[in-house]
Amino acid sequence: MHHKRKAIQDLYPDELAHCYGCGKNNPDGHQLKTYLMGDETIAHFTPDEKFTAIPGSVYGGLVASLLDCHGTGSAAAFACLAENIDLENVAIIPIRCVTASLKVDFKVPTPMGKKLELKGKLRSIEGRKILVDMTLSAEGIVCATGEILAIKLKD
Amino acid sequence: MHHKRKAIQDLYPDELAHCYGCGKNNPDGHQLKTYLMGDETIAHFTPDEKFTAIPGSVYGGLVASLLDCHGTGSAAAFACLAENIDLENVAIIPIRCVTASLKVDFKVPTPMGKKLELKGKLRSIEGRKILVDMTLSAEGIVCATGEILAIKLKD
Repeated sequence: MHHKRKAIQDLYPDELAHCYGCGKNNPDGHQLKTYLMGDETIAHFTPDEKFTAIPGSVYGGLVASLLDCHGTGSAAAFACLAENIDLENVAIIPIRCVTASLKVDFKVPTPMGKKLELKGKLRSIEGRKILVDMTLSAEGIVCATGEILAIKLKD
Repeated sequence: MHHKRKAIQDLYPDELAHCYGCGKNNPDGHQLKTYLMGDETIAHFTPDEKFTAIPGSVYGGLVASLLDCHGTGSAAAFACLAENIDLENVAIIPIRCVTASLKVDFKVPTPMGKKLELKGKLRSIEGRKILVDMTLSAEGIVCATGEILAIKLKD
Protein backbone atom coordinates (compact mmCIF):
# COMPACT_ATOMS: atom_id res chain seq x y z
CA MET A 1 0.00 0.00 0.00
CA HIS A 2 1.32 3.44 -0.90
CA HIS A 3 1.06 6.29 1.53
CA LYS A 4 1.62 9.49 -0.34
CA ARG A 5 0.75 11.52 2.70
CA LYS A 6 3.08 11.89 5.64
CA ALA A 7 2.10 10.05 8.83
CA ILE A 8 0.14 12.22 11.27
CA GLN A 9 2.74 11.56 13.99
CA ASP A 10 5.53 12.75 11.69
CA LEU A 11 3.77 16.11 11.61
CA TYR A 12 4.00 16.50 15.40
CA PRO A 13 6.50 19.19 16.37
CA ASP A 14 9.93 17.80 17.31
CA GLU A 15 9.63 18.75 20.97
CA LEU A 16 6.37 16.79 21.24
CA ALA A 17 7.52 13.72 19.32
CA HIS A 18 8.92 11.60 22.18
CA CYS A 19 5.89 9.41 22.83
CA TYR A 20 6.90 5.78 23.38
CA GLY A 21 3.89 4.70 21.38
CA CYS A 22 4.25 6.95 18.36
CA GLY A 23 6.97 9.57 18.66
CA LYS A 24 9.46 9.73 15.81
CA ASN A 25 12.03 11.00 18.31
CA ASN A 26 11.73 8.01 20.65
CA PRO A 27 14.21 5.42 19.34
CA ASP A 28 13.07 2.81 21.91
CA GLY A 29 9.38 3.18 21.14
CA HIS A 30 6.81 1.69 18.79
CA GLN A 31 6.83 4.64 16.35
CA LEU A 32 3.27 3.90 15.26
CA LYS A 33 2.35 5.82 12.11
CA THR A 34 -1.24 6.81 11.36
CA TYR A 35 -2.28 7.83 7.86
CA LEU A 36 -5.38 9.68 6.77
CA MET A 37 -7.00 7.86 3.83
CA GLY A 38 -10.13 9.61 2.66
CA ASP A 39 -12.34 9.93 5.72
CA GLU A 40 -10.67 7.06 7.60
CA THR A 41 -7.34 6.55 9.28
CA ILE A 42 -5.11 3.53 9.03
CA ALA A 43 -1.93 2.26 10.71
CA HIS A 44 0.03 -0.98 10.61
CA PHE A 45 2.21 -2.56 13.26
CA THR A 46 3.90 -5.93 13.69
CA PRO A 47 4.65 -6.54 17.38
CA ASP A 48 7.94 -7.95 18.53
CA GLU A 49 7.71 -11.40 20.14
CA LYS A 50 8.52 -9.99 23.57
CA PHE A 51 5.11 -8.28 23.71
CA THR A 52 3.47 -11.61 24.50
CA ALA A 53 0.43 -12.27 26.68
CA ILE A 54 0.22 -16.02 26.77
CA PRO A 55 2.52 -17.58 24.18
CA GLY A 56 1.10 -16.96 20.69
CA SER A 57 -0.86 -13.82 21.45
CA VAL A 58 -0.12 -10.13 21.91
CA TYR A 59 -0.53 -8.70 25.41
CA GLY A 60 -3.46 -6.40 26.02
CA GLY A 61 -1.34 -3.46 27.06
CA LEU A 62 0.18 -3.20 23.59
CA VAL A 63 -3.24 -3.43 21.96
CA ALA A 64 -4.43 -0.59 24.20
CA SER A 65 -1.27 1.42 23.53
CA LEU A 66 -1.61 1.14 19.75
CA LEU A 67 -5.28 2.13 19.92
CA ASP A 68 -4.43 5.09 22.15
CA CYS A 69 -1.78 6.52 19.83
CA HIS A 70 -3.78 5.73 16.70
CA GLY A 71 -6.76 7.39 18.36
CA THR A 72 -5.10 10.69 19.24
CA GLY A 73 -3.45 10.84 15.83
CA SER A 74 -6.77 10.12 14.14
CA ALA A 75 -8.56 12.72 16.23
CA ALA A 76 -6.04 15.38 15.22
CA ALA A 77 -6.38 14.37 11.56
CA PHE A 78 -10.19 14.45 11.67
CA ALA A 79 -10.15 17.83 13.41
CA CYS A 80 -7.92 19.16 10.62
CA LEU A 81 -10.29 17.74 7.99
CA ALA A 82 -13.20 19.45 9.70
CA GLU A 83 -11.34 22.75 9.63
CA ASN A 84 -10.24 22.35 6.01
CA ILE A 85 -6.60 22.14 6.93
CA ASP A 86 -4.80 20.25 4.17
CA LEU A 87 -2.27 17.94 5.82
CA GLU A 88 -0.35 17.60 2.58
CA ASN A 89 0.66 21.21 2.79
CA VAL A 90 1.77 21.53 6.40
CA ALA A 91 5.12 20.71 7.97
CA ILE A 92 3.66 20.71 11.50
CA ILE A 93 0.11 19.68 12.30
CA PRO A 94 -1.60 22.70 13.87
CA ILE A 95 -3.95 20.62 16.04
CA ARG A 96 -2.84 18.28 18.79
CA CYS A 97 -5.05 15.99 20.88
CA VAL A 98 -4.69 14.16 24.17
CA THR A 99 -6.67 11.20 25.46
CA ALA A 100 -9.36 11.87 28.03
CA SER A 101 -10.79 8.36 27.91
CA LEU A 102 -10.00 5.12 26.11
CA LYS A 103 -12.15 2.00 26.03
CA VAL A 104 -10.87 -1.23 24.56
CA ASP A 105 -13.00 -4.31 23.96
CA PHE A 106 -11.00 -7.47 23.41
CA LYS A 107 -12.92 -9.71 21.02
CA VAL A 108 -10.48 -12.53 20.26
CA PRO A 109 -6.80 -12.99 21.15
CA THR A 110 -4.52 -10.85 18.97
CA PRO A 111 -2.16 -13.29 17.24
CA MET A 112 1.61 -12.81 17.57
CA GLY A 113 3.72 -12.54 14.42
CA LYS A 114 1.04 -11.02 12.19
CA LYS A 115 0.87 -7.53 10.77
CA LEU A 116 -1.85 -5.73 12.70
CA GLU A 117 -4.08 -3.17 11.01
CA LEU A 118 -5.68 -0.31 12.91
CA LYS A 119 -8.50 1.72 11.46
CA GLY A 120 -10.20 4.83 12.78
CA LYS A 121 -13.47 6.55 11.97
CA LEU A 122 -14.74 9.84 13.28
CA ARG A 123 -17.92 9.54 15.32
CA SER A 124 -18.32 13.17 16.40
CA ILE A 125 -16.65 16.50 17.05
CA GLU A 126 -18.27 18.74 19.63
CA GLY A 127 -16.19 21.75 20.57
CA ARG A 128 -12.87 20.37 21.80
CA LYS A 129 -14.21 16.82 22.24
CA ILE A 130 -13.49 14.35 19.46
CA LEU A 131 -14.82 10.77 19.51
CA VAL A 132 -13.14 8.18 17.31
CA ASP A 133 -14.13 4.54 16.80
CA MET A 134 -11.36 2.08 16.01
CA THR A 135 -10.67 -1.51 15.14
CA LEU A 136 -7.50 -3.55 15.43
CA SER A 137 -7.42 -6.52 13.05
CA ALA A 138 -5.13 -9.34 12.06
CA GLU A 139 -5.64 -11.01 8.68
CA GLY A 140 -9.05 -9.41 8.37
CA ILE A 141 -10.33 -10.54 11.77
CA VAL A 142 -11.17 -7.82 14.28
CA CYS A 143 -9.30 -8.70 17.47
CA ALA A 144 -10.19 -5.57 19.43
CA THR A 145 -12.29 -2.46 19.10
CA GLY A 146 -11.43 0.88 20.62
CA GLU A 147 -13.28 4.06 21.44
CA ILE A 148 -11.38 7.19 22.30
CA LEU A 149 -12.47 10.52 23.63
CA ALA A 150 -9.71 12.91 22.62
CA ILE A 151 -9.47 16.54 23.65
CA LYS A 152 -8.11 19.19 21.34
CA LEU A 153 -5.37 21.09 23.12
CA LYS A 154 -5.58 24.85 23.24
CA ASP A 155 -2.69 26.65 21.59
CA MET B 1 5.59 -1.64 52.99
CA HIS B 2 5.77 -5.34 53.76
CA HIS B 3 4.04 -7.82 51.52
CA LYS B 4 3.83 -11.10 53.36
CA ARG B 5 1.71 -12.58 50.62
CA LYS B 6 3.12 -13.59 47.28
CA ALA B 7 2.19 -11.42 44.29
CA ILE B 8 -0.85 -12.71 42.40
CA GLN B 9 1.19 -12.87 39.17
CA ASP B 10 3.84 -15.01 40.88
CA LEU B 11 1.10 -17.58 41.46
CA TYR B 12 0.40 -17.90 37.73
CA PRO B 13 1.60 -21.24 36.35
CA ASP B 14 5.01 -21.05 34.66
CA GLU B 15 3.66 -21.70 31.17
CA LEU B 16 1.26 -18.74 31.54
CA ALA B 17 3.76 -16.32 33.04
CA HIS B 18 5.15 -14.68 29.89
CA CYS B 19 2.97 -11.58 29.78
CA TYR B 20 5.01 -8.48 28.90
CA GLY B 21 3.02 -6.53 31.46
CA CYS B 22 3.22 -8.88 34.42
CA GLY B 23 4.78 -12.27 33.66
CA LYS B 24 7.61 -13.34 35.94
CA ASN B 25 9.02 -15.31 32.99
CA ASN B 26 9.25 -12.31 30.66
CA PRO B 27 12.67 -10.76 31.33
CA ASP B 28 11.96 -7.84 28.96
CA GLY B 29 8.60 -6.98 30.50
CA HIS B 30 7.26 -4.78 33.27
CA GLN B 31 6.78 -7.65 35.75
CA LEU B 32 4.01 -5.81 37.55
CA LYS B 33 3.16 -7.40 40.87
CA THR B 34 -0.29 -7.15 42.39
CA TYR B 35 -0.87 -7.89 46.07
CA LEU B 36 -4.10 -8.62 47.85
CA MET B 37 -4.37 -6.48 50.99
CA GLY B 38 -7.59 -7.11 52.87
CA ASP B 39 -10.36 -6.56 50.35
CA GLU B 40 -8.25 -4.36 48.06
CA THR B 41 -5.36 -4.94 45.71
CA ILE B 42 -2.24 -2.86 45.36
CA ALA B 43 0.73 -2.67 43.01
CA HIS B 44 3.64 -0.29 42.57
CA PHE B 45 5.63 0.57 39.48
CA THR B 46 8.22 3.19 38.58
CA PRO B 47 8.34 3.65 34.79
CA ASP B 48 11.59 3.90 32.93
CA GLU B 49 12.20 7.28 31.29
CA LYS B 50 11.75 5.82 27.80
CA PHE B 51 8.01 5.36 28.45
CA THR B 52 7.46 9.07 27.90
CA ALA B 53 4.43 10.80 26.39
CA ILE B 54 5.49 14.39 26.22
CA PRO B 55 8.68 14.99 28.19
CA GLY B 56 7.89 14.77 31.91
CA SER B 57 4.89 12.50 31.71
CA VAL B 58 4.21 8.79 31.23
CA TYR B 59 2.63 7.72 27.95
CA GLY B 60 -0.97 6.55 28.05
CA GLY B 61 -0.22 3.10 26.69
CA LEU B 62 1.81 2.24 29.78
CA VAL B 63 -0.92 3.55 32.08
CA ALA B 64 -3.43 1.34 30.24
CA SER B 65 -1.06 -1.63 30.31
CA LEU B 66 -0.50 -1.39 34.07
CA LEU B 67 -4.24 -1.08 34.70
CA ASP B 68 -4.93 -4.07 32.47
CA CYS B 69 -2.47 -6.39 34.23
CA HIS B 70 -3.39 -5.09 37.68
CA GLY B 71 -7.04 -5.60 36.72
CA THR B 72 -6.81 -9.22 35.65
CA GLY B 73 -4.63 -10.05 38.64
CA SER B 74 -7.07 -8.30 40.96
CA ALA B 75 -10.04 -10.08 39.39
CA ALA B 76 -8.41 -13.46 39.96
CA ALA B 77 -7.62 -12.54 43.56
CA PHE B 78 -11.17 -11.32 44.25
CA ALA B 79 -12.62 -14.46 42.67
CA CYS B 80 -10.44 -16.56 44.99
CA LEU B 81 -11.58 -14.52 48.00
CA ALA B 82 -15.20 -15.09 46.99
CA GLU B 83 -14.58 -18.82 46.80
CA ASN B 84 -12.69 -18.95 50.10
CA ILE B 85 -9.44 -19.94 48.41
CA ASP B 86 -6.60 -18.88 50.69
CA LEU B 87 -3.85 -17.49 48.45
CA GLU B 88 -1.29 -17.95 51.22
CA ASN B 89 -1.63 -21.69 50.92
CA VAL B 90 -1.45 -22.22 47.17
CA ALA B 91 1.58 -22.49 44.90
CA ILE B 92 -0.50 -21.88 41.76
CA ILE B 93 -3.59 -19.68 41.69
CA PRO B 94 -6.51 -21.90 40.62
CA ILE B 95 -8.41 -19.05 38.91
CA ARG B 96 -7.19 -17.13 35.90
CA CYS B 97 -8.88 -14.17 34.24
CA VAL B 98 -8.63 -12.44 30.88
CA THR B 99 -9.72 -8.96 29.93
CA ALA B 100 -12.97 -8.57 28.02
CA SER B 101 -13.06 -4.79 28.31
CA LEU B 102 -10.87 -2.07 29.76
CA LYS B 103 -11.78 1.58 30.18
CA VAL B 104 -9.20 4.14 31.23
CA ASP B 105 -9.98 7.73 32.15
CA PHE B 106 -6.98 10.00 32.14
CA LYS B 107 -7.48 12.68 34.81
CA VAL B 108 -4.14 14.48 34.94
CA PRO B 109 -0.80 13.72 33.28
CA THR B 110 1.04 10.85 35.02
CA PRO B 111 4.38 12.29 36.11
CA MET B 112 7.60 10.58 35.02
CA GLY B 113 10.12 9.50 37.66
CA LYS B 114 7.63 8.88 40.45
CA LYS B 115 6.58 5.60 42.01
CA LEU B 116 3.08 4.90 40.76
CA GLU B 117 0.53 3.18 42.97
CA LEU B 118 -2.29 1.10 41.54
CA LYS B 119 -5.28 0.09 43.64
CA GLY B 120 -8.15 -2.23 42.82
CA LYS B 121 -11.57 -2.76 44.36
CA LEU B 122 -14.12 -5.39 43.48
CA ARG B 123 -17.37 -3.99 42.15
CA SER B 124 -19.20 -7.22 41.30
CA ILE B 125 -18.90 -10.89 40.44
CA GLU B 126 -21.68 -12.39 38.33
CA GLY B 127 -20.97 -15.87 37.10
CA ARG B 128 -17.71 -15.63 35.16
CA LYS B 129 -17.85 -11.81 34.88
CA ILE B 130 -15.79 -9.83 37.34
CA LEU B 131 -15.82 -6.02 37.44
CA VAL B 132 -12.94 -4.22 39.14
CA ASP B 133 -12.50 -0.49 39.70
CA MET B 134 -8.98 0.87 39.82
CA THR B 135 -6.95 3.98 40.39
CA LEU B 136 -3.42 4.85 39.35
CA SER B 137 -1.84 7.52 41.55
CA ALA B 138 1.42 9.38 41.93
CA GLU B 139 2.24 10.99 45.28
CA GLY B 140 -1.38 10.61 46.37
CA ILE B 141 -2.88 12.24 43.27
CA VAL B 142 -5.11 10.06 41.10
CA CYS B 143 -3.77 10.38 37.55
CA ALA B 144 -6.05 7.81 35.93
CA THR B 145 -8.95 5.58 36.82
CA GLY B 146 -9.61 2.20 35.26
CA GLU B 147 -12.54 -0.14 35.00
CA ILE B 148 -12.04 -3.70 33.86
CA LEU B 149 -14.45 -6.43 32.91
CA ALA B 150 -12.50 -9.63 33.40
CA ILE B 151 -13.71 -13.09 32.49
CA LYS B 152 -12.87 -16.13 34.56
CA LEU B 153 -11.35 -18.78 32.32
CA LYS B 154 -12.82 -22.25 32.41
CA ASP B 155 -10.41 -24.97 33.48
